[in-house]
Amino acid sequence: KINGERLWDSLMQMARIGPGIAGGNNRQTLTDADAEGRALFRKWCESEGLEIGVDRMGTMFAARPGTDPAALPVYVGSHLDTQPTGGKYDGVLGVLGGLEIIRTLNEAGVKTRHPIVVTNWTNEEGTRFAPPMLASGVFAGVHELDWAYALEDAEGKRFGDELARIGWQGEEEVGARRMHAFFELHIEQGPILEAEGVDIGVVTHGQGLRWIEVTVTGKESHTGSTPMPMRLNAGRGLAQITELVHEIAMSRQPDAVGAIGHVDVYPNSRNIIPGRVVFTVDFRSHLIDVLEGMVARFADEAPKLAAGLGLGFESRVVGSFDPPAFDEGCVGAVRRAAEAMGYSHRDIVSGAGHDACWINRVAPTAMVMCPCVDGLSHNEAEEITPDWAEKGANVLFRAVLETAGI
Amino acid sequence: KINGERLWDSLMQMARIGPGIAGGNNRQTLTDADAEGRALFRKWCESEGLEIGVDRMGTMFAARPGTDPAALPVYVGSHLDTQPTGGKYDGVLGVLGGLEIIRTLNEAGVKTRHPIVVTNWTNEEGTRFAPPMLASGVFAGVHELDWAYALEDAEGKRFGDELARIGWQGEEEVGARRMHAFFELHIEQGPILEAEGVDIGVVTHGQGLRWIEVTVTGKESHTGSTPMPMRLNAGRGLAQITELVHEIAMSRQPDAVGAIGHVDVYPNSRNIIPGRVVFTVDFRSHLIDVLEGMVARFADEAPKLAAGLGLGFESRVVGSFDPPAFDEGCVGAVRRAAEAMGYSHRDIVSGAGHDACWINRVAPTAMVMCPCVDGLSHNEAEEITPDWAEKGANVLFRAVLETAGI
Ligand SMILES: NC(=O)NCCC(=O)O
Ligand SMILES: NC(=O)NCCC(=O)O
Repeated sequence: KINGERLWDSLMQMARIGPGIAGGNNRQTLTDADAEGRALFRKWCESEGLEIGVDRMGTMFAARPGTDPAALPVYVGSHLDTQPTGGKYDGVLGVLGGLEIIRTLNEAGVKTRHPIVVTNWTNEEGTRFAPPMLASGVFAGVHELDWAYALEDAEGKRFGDELARIGWQGEEEVGARRMHAFFELHIEQGPILEAEGVDIGVVTHGQGLRWIEVTVTGKESHTGSTPMPMRLNAGRGLAQITELVHEIAMSRQPDAVGAIGHVDVYPNSRNIIPGRVVFTVDFRSHLIDVLEGMVARFADEAPKLAAGLGLGFESRVVGSFDPPAFDEGCVGAVRRAAEAMGYSHRDIVSGAGHDACWINRVAPTAMVMCPCVDGLSHNEAEEITPDWAEKGANVLFRAVLETAGI
Repeated sequence: KINGERLWDSLMQMARIGPGIAGGNNRQTLTDADAEGRALFRKWCESEGLEIGVDRMGTMFAARPGTDPAALPVYVGSHLDTQPTGGKYDGVLGVLGGLEIIRTLNEAGVKTRHPIVVTNWTNEEGTRFAPPMLASGVFAGVHELDWAYALEDAEGKRFGDELARIGWQGEEEVGARRMHAFFELHIEQGPILEAEGVDIGVVTHGQGLRWIEVTVTGKESHTGSTPMPMRLNAGRGLAQITELVHEIAMSRQPDAVGAIGHVDVYPNSRNIIPGRVVFTVDFRSHLIDVLEGMVARFADEAPKLAAGLGLGFESRVVGSFDPPAFDEGCVGAVRRAAEAMGYSHRDIVSGAGHDACWINRVAPTAMVMCPCVDGLSHNEAEEITPDWAEKGANVLFRAVLETAGI
């Protein structure tokens, strides 16, 4: 069994870095706060005798050797970056839960056959640099390194430059490592486990995602002196498309979700009719046909709404993954671990994307979920109990131990 | 007759200060560019022998003496500040048109009975610090100086601090000056004069305005893992209220306009359902009953739309003025000036607010309008012809001369 108090203590220490404004965190990827969080994690890993590798995407790999020189490592981890108004557990629990496994094994003097590598994937959140799960995506061969390096944040800063600036651009080729398996512990970020009073979610599938960045273009003009019939108001394009996205998702209940989270209005002046609005639509479903159906309907209807308002319409996909089905063997290991610990558990679909969704393409992968209060995440008020964290980490521990072998 | 070439040349020189990104200007109030524009205007005034006064709101008064020591001055002017993506003429034409009158009189060696004072009102645009027409409003006793000083821009910088920072906080008490009359030349910012091929708009009335800043509050949560029925999406509040504002204005055609120009979405992340959206509604009409009717309908229906989405709703008025009717004597002087010059002219209502709308409360006031291309303003592509500018300035000249007396 892992040490729940030690795990909680580390979670609280990490949460001090990049504090938010309402009790949560703002430790966005490749910021100074991210660098500080990484340094603390490295310090902890080094004091456990782990060897740290860093790849060209800045992903950190902290390795504990195994007894069999031929055995591929079992990887375990998640991400330390947060949303701009993020919680203390989203991602962090998976990384520090992995570290807690190592601490427990070291303390007990237990050696495993396969090495165990605790991993911190760069830019899982995708807020500052879309798409999310960026480094795991490059690792899995979904994205090119050069493409990732050229991504720009809202201020026009490039991912590659920012990675170098914070000093975490490693030399290791991305994706060169071979994995025996990958396990990720994560908070549910949804309401199901808490509502049902279940300790552990055994994640069998994930939702697929499409992020569509839309630009609607009208004509900037004076709000006072432009007659109503002469207006080309891009804000109305946003309005009608916001409702369209909602309707499309509602027409596929309970199998889909859809919303617009990010909106930039230009020039954003009280007495100028918006000439341009840029926003990103987020559609998800665990059923590929539903996901593609929503995107098709959107591609059909959204441009018509814009045209009806006299607006130009452009769109491009800035994030995309299909619904993953996790590895039956690894999922079984998670289920058996929960069973063995005597925890209540249920199979569950992950609502959010995770690094595990990409790694699942190149290695046998599974995820462990624990409840979170009110299903709230991507909110500074995100909360879990020490008990939930401990149970999640214990299941992770057992599943990893079974897979790494003693 | 004024010198149209000299006027145009000065307009082009001023436009070099605070250039925009598309041929227009970004010389927002109390920025370094604003200070630079003021310094150029001061230099020009000084070389015409004018005496410069600056009041505590930073408004500049450049005075040419009259022959009658007991006669109150005739004021003429507008504003040199621009929108963030503004044109080269909105406001500037009125200030430099006033300067051109002085240059013409100096050149001809003509003395007037009443002094003439060219004025540059601070923060007419109201983009950086709402409300618009701020300094003229304080001058007219509509706003308190301390209240204006405490206004904050989006970065939390205070008006008073920024005024001091750029070095244009004068010592003169605001509103202490008495005026014989005030004249403002301005581009129409609407399509009527150009469409009808008319040289001069004789402004008889203005539109009244209400700016209502609204905050709709939902709950930040994950776009992927929050089930549709659990969402409190503040973005949908913006969407439905955007359409409501449009409908309200459309129900009062052709007497009203309405739109939302300014929108801030929080936390504005692609995978976070908006927890809060702050935006400003702009309603206008030249009929007070229509204006108040729109505001009343909005106050009734907008909170219901928000409540229907489970959202909180708060609003406050951040700008307000009633439709002004300009002084018949001054309006007559403008009409006679256009007649005398043989220019085509028509009576017109100003779609936009102007400093003249406030000054009209404390002095006999009128406005001269000239056409602008496509009615476009608050857009870097705002354009006028040198001929339009010259005709407008000639009418201003004659009206001021008649009023100031020779
Ligand atoms: N787990 C998580 O919030 N990941 C970010 C990517 C997503 O939006 O699903
Ligand atoms: N003339 C002008 O654009 N003034 C700004 C105030 C308003 O929005 O009407």
